[in-house]
Amino acid sequence: MRTSQSPALPGTTHEPPGYACPFCRFQRGVHDEWNQPSDVVAVTERAFARVAPKWWPANPGGVLVIPRPHVENLYALSAEDGREVWDLTQRVAEGIRTSYDCAGTSVRQHNEPAGDQDLWHLHVHVFPRHADDRLYQRHAEARWAPPAEREPYAEKLRAVLRLPHDLDA
Amino acid sequence: MRTSQSPALPGTTHEPPGYACPFCRFQRGVHDEWNQPSDVVAVTERAFARVAPKWWPANPGGVLVIPRPHVENLYALSAEDGREVWDLTQRVAEGIRTSYDCAGTSVRQHNEPAGDQDLWHLHVHVFPRHADDRLYQRHAEARWAPPAEREPYAEKLRAVLRLPHDLDA
Repeated sequence: MRTSQSPALPGTTHEPPGYACPFCRFQRGVHDEWNQPSDVVAVTERAFARVAPKWWPANPGGVLVIPRPHVENLYALSAEDGREVWDLTQRVAEGIRTSYDCAGTSVRQHNEPAGDQDLWHLHVHVFPRHADDRLYQRHAEARWAPPAEREPYAEKLRAVLRLPHDLDA
Repeated sequence: MRTSQSPALPGTTHEPPGYACPFCRFQRGVHDEWNQPSDVVAVTERAFARVAPKWWPANPGGVLVIPRPHVENLYALSAEDGREVWDLTQRVAEGIRTSYDCAGTSVRQHNEPAGDQDLWHLHVHVFPRHADDRLYQRHAEARWAPPAEREPYAEKLRAVLRLPHDLDA
């Protein structure tokens, strides 16, 4: 699915040679503790959304929206893929706000190591927000949530999004 | 220009009655210390981008991408407006990366007070990023940059974006 990728901006590629991309492997049916079919909440032609395995202390159930083609960062995202990624981001934000017990949402997206990127396939974070959750101040306190903790959040989201959610279909 | 707005999601409107929206006033030609014509770097039919007046300590020259219609938050952003806002966000991120002396970029967008929103017209932040800039950890240290500090960043961006940049045209 790499054909829709824009040319990389010179000097902005940080993916090591032979990178075993976890989000490409996930789409090929390779599952592990961090990538489970039960995490997936929406699948469109060019994007998918899944409950994230990395959680910040006061923001459980965060979601990642991911282009289906392997695209490293925002500079390499085509207009067509971008459209589906951001459309789905908007739907997920609204879905989180209506199905989780939260009082707001926020979105963020990181490019390159200096921009806090640490996985080399573009992903947009969508967070449920709560009063005084101190999401930014507690940036260093993230943990890995096991699949059983993620699943109830994915169930809530699937119920309101009503979109296909099988990556293997 | 409110016709393209999606219906507000119940319970997610926080704008006070009679709100004098700074981004709507800016588009009507009302200028002040925080909103100057020299800040504007790109104007499209449904969105515009301008150097932000609020700067975090190690990230000077951040940009805001704003829908031209008055839309409070992401839940109320129509698909049509969203497309132009996010397309312009992508172009601005690439423009920052190529014209500023930075090593990455990141994007964020806040909805509702619990989500860190404090101005009631949707805006997407695009940040230049530098190694160890601690953007999140220094969240409480923002300051207001005067117009003369903002202008050189806007000039760099206009030179690479090559888009219309006159809000009054």
